[in-house]
Amino acid sequence: MNSSMVRIILGHILKIEAGFLLLPCLVALIYGEKVGLIYLAVAAGSLIAGIIMSIAPAEDKTLFLKEGCVATALSWILMSIVGSLPFYISREIPRFVDACFETVSGFTTTGSSILSDIEGLTHASLFWRSATHWIGGMGVLVFLLSIVSLSGGSTINLMKAESPGPSVGKLVPKIKSTARNLYIIYAVITIIEMIMLMVGGCPAFDAITLAFGTAGTGGFAIKGDSVAGYSSYVQWVVTVFMILFGINFNAYYLILIKHIKEVFKIEEIKYYLLVILASTLIIFINIKDMFGSWTDAIRHSAFQVASIITTTGFATVDFDTWNTTCKMIIILLMFIGACAGSTGGGIKVSRFVIMGKTILKEINSFIHPKSIKKIIYDGKPAEHSMIRSVNVYMATYVLIMAASLILVSFNGEDLITTATSVITCMNNIGPGFAKLGPTCNFSFLSTFTKIVLMFDMLAGRLELFPLIILFHPKLLRDLAGGKRRQDI
Amino acid sequence: MNSSMVRIILGHILKIEAGFLLLPCLVALIYGEKVGLIYLAVAAGSLIAGIIMSIAPAEDKTLFLKEGCVATALSWILMSIVGSLPFYISREIPRFVDACFETVSGFTTTGSSILSDIEGLTHASLFWRSATHWIGGMGVLVFLLSIVSLSGGSTINLMKAESPGPSVGKLVPKIKSTARNLYIIYAVITIIEMIMLMVGGCPAFDAITLAFGTAGTGGFAIKGDSVAGYSSYVQWVVTVFMILFGINFNAYYLILIKHIKEVFKIEEIKYYLLVILASTLIIFINIKDMFGSWTDAIRHSAFQVASIITTTGFATVDFDTWNTTCKMIIILLMFIGACAGSTGGGIKVSRFVIMGKTILKEINSFIHPKSIKKIIYDGKPAEHSMIRSVNVYMATYVLIMAASLILVSFNGEDLITTATSVITCMNNIGPGFAKLGPTCNFSFLSTFTKIVLMFDMLAGRLELFPLIILFHPKLLRDLAGGKRRQDI
Repeated sequence: MNSSMVRIILGHILKIEAGFLLLPCLVALIYGEKVGLIYLAVAAGSLIAGIIMSIAPAEDKTLFLKEGCVATALSWILMSIVGSLPFYISREIPRFVDACFETVSGFTTTGSSILSDIEGLTHASLFWRSATHWIGGMGVLVFLLSIVSLSGGSTINLMKAESPGPSVGKLVPKIKSTARNLYIIYAVITIIEMIMLMVGGCPAFDAITLAFGTAGTGGFAIKGDSVAGYSSYVQWVVTVFMILFGINFNAYYLILIKHIKEVFKIEEIKYYLLVILASTLIIFINIKDMFGSWTDAIRHSAFQVASIITTTGFATVDFDTWNTTCKMIIILLMFIGACAGSTGGGIKVSRFVIMGKTILKEINSFIHPKSIKKIIYDGKPAEHSMIRSVNVYMATYVLIMAASLILVSFNGEDLITTATSVITCMNNIGPGFAKLGPTCNFSFLSTFTKIVLMFDMLAGRLELFPLIILFHPKLLRDLAGGKRRQDI
Repeated sequence: MNSSMVRIILGHILKIEAGFLLLPCLVALIYGEKVGLIYLAVAAGSLIAGIIMSIAPAEDKTLFLKEGCVATALSWILMSIVGSLPFYISREIPRFVDACFETVSGFTTTGSSILSDIEGLTHASLFWRSATHWIGGMGVLVFLLSIVSLSGGSTINLMKAESPGPSVGKLVPKIKSTARNLYIIYAVITIIEMIMLMVGGCPAFDAITLAFGTAGTGGFAIKGDSVAGYSSYVQWVVTVFMILFGINFNAYYLILIKHIKEVFKIEEIKYYLLVILASTLIIFINIKDMFGSWTDAIRHSAFQVASIITTTGFATVDFDTWNTTCKMIIILLMFIGACAGSTGGGIKVSRFVIMGKTILKEINSFIHPKSIKKIIYDGKPAEHSMIRSVNVYMATYVLIMAASLILVSFNGEDLITTATSVITCMNNIGPGFAKLGPTCNFSFLSTFTKIVLMFDMLAGRLELFPLIILFHPKLLRDLAGGKRRQDI
C-alpha cells in the first residue's frame, strides 16, 4: 500500500481543519469568550501536525481505490478526534467519548447530541458544532479539492470511495473544476438561506448556525427545543432549504451550465418530491386535530418530513408523541434518505428507484418470459455494475445494521430506543424514538454503545465500504507494517 | 392465459382438500363430537365442487410460469376459504374473517392465532387446525403430485413459483419420483416424532398435533400455554425435530440415495446450525439467572431459538419478558428463517449466505481491483441468475414489508406490536412482541389489518411473486375475461 500518500493526505486534512478552527476563534473574539484561545491552540497544533505529516514528499503519487478508502476513513476519524479537542479541553463536554461522539455526529451530519444543556455552551462552541455539519456535508469536495492537487489524476478512486450514492460518477470528468463549481453552489445556497432567515428577523448568529445545520443536512441547533422556538416564517424557510439541500447537486450544476432540460431527466428528484408530498399529506391527516389550525399542522408535517427524509434531524415538535402511523412513516423515511449526490444520508432515493425497477422487470418476466427489456434509469439503460453495487450496498447495510442492533442491545434499553438509535445514526439523521426522541439526548448510553453508534455514523456517511475495509486483515497488516511494505 | 388449466388445477386441489377434511371427521367419530358432520358436509361440498371444476378437459395442457403462479396463488386462497368453513359453520370461530385468518395462518404454517380459548375447541377442530400446518408445510409437493399427472412436463414452472428458497431447482429432474420421495421423507420423520413423543408419555392426540405443528414449522398448539405445560423430554424432542424440519430436505434425499458426501457440501446447513448454536448461547447467557437451573435455561434458550429460526412459533416461556438483547436476537432470527427447501419460512439462510459472499467479493475487489473471482456456493460457481433472484427477492421483500407496516399502523397499536405483527406474519412464524407476544392472540386487530396480515402470510409462504403477480393489470384482465381470452 502507498502509505506515504495516505500520510500526506491526512496531513493536508489537518491543515484544512486548522483553517476551519479559526472561525470559532473569530466568534469567541466577537463575544469575548476565553474559549477562543483553546480553539486557537488546537488550530495551531493541528496546523503543525499537518505540516510535519505532509513535509516528506511521496515517491509514488498514485492512489488506488484501496488507498482512497483508507485515506477517507482515517481522515474522518482524525478530523473528528482533532475537532473534539476544544470541547474536551474547555470542559464544555467533560468526557472524551462524549466530545468525540458530538464531533463525529457533527462531521457525519448526523446531529445526534449528548448535550442536555445545549444553550449552556459558549458561542464559539455552538458555532463550531454547527460548522462541523457544514464542513462534513460537502466533505467529498473538501477531499477532492485537497487531493486533486496532490495526485496525478487517480482521484477518481477517492471519489468512488466517498460519493454519496450511485450517481456521482457522472461528475468525474473535469473533476477539479466540477468540484469547485459544486462548492460554490453549496456556499451560495447556504448564504441565500442565511439572508432569508435574517430578513425574517432571525438573529445573525442563529441564522448562520441554522443555515450550517440545514446545508449539511446535519441537525444540530443552538436551542434546546431545536427549531420549535422560531417563527413560522423561519420554520418554512428551513423546510424549503432542507428539501433543496436533499436534492442531487447535479441538478444545480446542470442549471448553472444552463442544461435545464437534463435536470428533468433526473428521475430520482421526481420520486424524492413525490415521497415528501405523500408523507406530508398522510402525516397532516393524522395530526391535524392536534394543532390549533390547519396551517400549523401542515407546517409541522412538512417540516418533520423534510427534516427526516433529508436526514437533517431538526424538529419543531416532539414527534415521538404522534400516533403510530406518523411514527412508522418517519421511520421509513429515515431509511429512504435524500437524493444521491446531495449532502443528505440514508440509503438514498436513487437506490430505491433502481430496486423498484428491478422488481417491475422481474414481475414482467413472469408475464412475458421471453422479454429482454433493460432497466431504464435517467433515460439511459442502467449499467449492470450500477445495479450490482446497489444490491451489494443493501446487503452490507443489512449486515452492519443487524450487528449494530445486537451490540447496542447490550446497553439494556427498550427495543424502540435500541432500534432507532442504530437507524438514526446509520442514516445520519439525529433523533430517534422513545428515550432518544427529539427532546432527548444520547448522553445516558454506555461508552461501548457510543463507540458502536460512532462507527455507524461514519459507516453511513462514508457509504459503508471505506470504513469496513479498514478491518480487512491484509490492510491492517499493511497499516501496521507502515512504510516498509509500500510495495504491497 | 390458459385459464382452463388453472380451473382444472383448482378443481384437483378441492378434491385433495376434501380427502384431508375426512381426517377431522374420523377424530370427531372417536371423540363422539357432532362437529364431525360439518366437516363431512364441507368435505362433500369440496369434492363435488372439485369434480365439477375439473370435469371439462383442457384443450391445451401447457402450463407456463404465469399460469403456474396464478394457479398457486389462487389454490392457496381457495384452500384457505374452504378450510375455514368448518370453523365458521360450527361457530367455533364466529367471525368469518377470523376463521379465514386462522386457516390462512394454518396453511401458510404461520401459527398466528385469533383464538383466546384454544382449549375450548373440539378435538376435530384442534386436529384440523394442526393438520393445516402439515398440509401447508409440504404444500409444494401436494401441488406437484397433483399437477404432474395433468401436464405434459411443464410443471417445472410451478415448482419455480412456489419453491421455498433458491435451491429447490436441483430437484427438478425426475420431478415426480423426487416429489414422492420427499413426501415419504416428510411423512416418516413426522411419524418418528409422534412415536418419540408418545414414548415420553405424551398422549396420542397431543403427540399427533404437536408433530403436525413441528413438521410444517407451523406452531399451532392445542394448549393455551403452547408447549410450556409438557415435560422437559417432550420440549427437547420438539426442539430437535423443529431443527430437523428446518434443514434443507435435499439433505435427507441425498442420505436416502446414499450420497452422504454431498450432504456436507450444502453450505447453508452449516450456517443454519451455527446461527442456532450462537443464538442459543447468547440467549442462555442473558436468561440463565431467570430460571432455577442451568438445564432449564439451556432448554428454554434452545427451544425458543429453534422455534423462531425455523419459523415454527411454539413457545415454552413468554419470551416477551426477556431482555432487549434476547428480543433483538429473536427478531433477527425471525428474518433469517430456516434453510431453503425446508418447510420453514423467513428469508432463508441460503439467501443470507449468498449475500454474505457478495459482500466479501466486493470488499476483496477494493483490495484487489483486478481480481475476477467468482462466488462459490455449495462447491460450485454461483450462477448469475441465482444472485440476481436473491437481490430481486430482497427488494420485493422490503417493499411489501414497508407497505404492510404503513397499512397495519392504521390499526393504531404501538410500534412494537405493529412492526412485529408484520414481521411474524410475513416470515410465517406466529407470535410477535408486546400485544402479540406468545401469550397473546391476534383477535383484537381490525378486519382490514387481518386482511393485510393474511396477504403477508401468503406472500411469505409463496415466496412473494405468485401473489403479487395476481395484481398485474394484464393478468387481472385475463382472469376477468375468463375462457374467452385463453389465447392471450
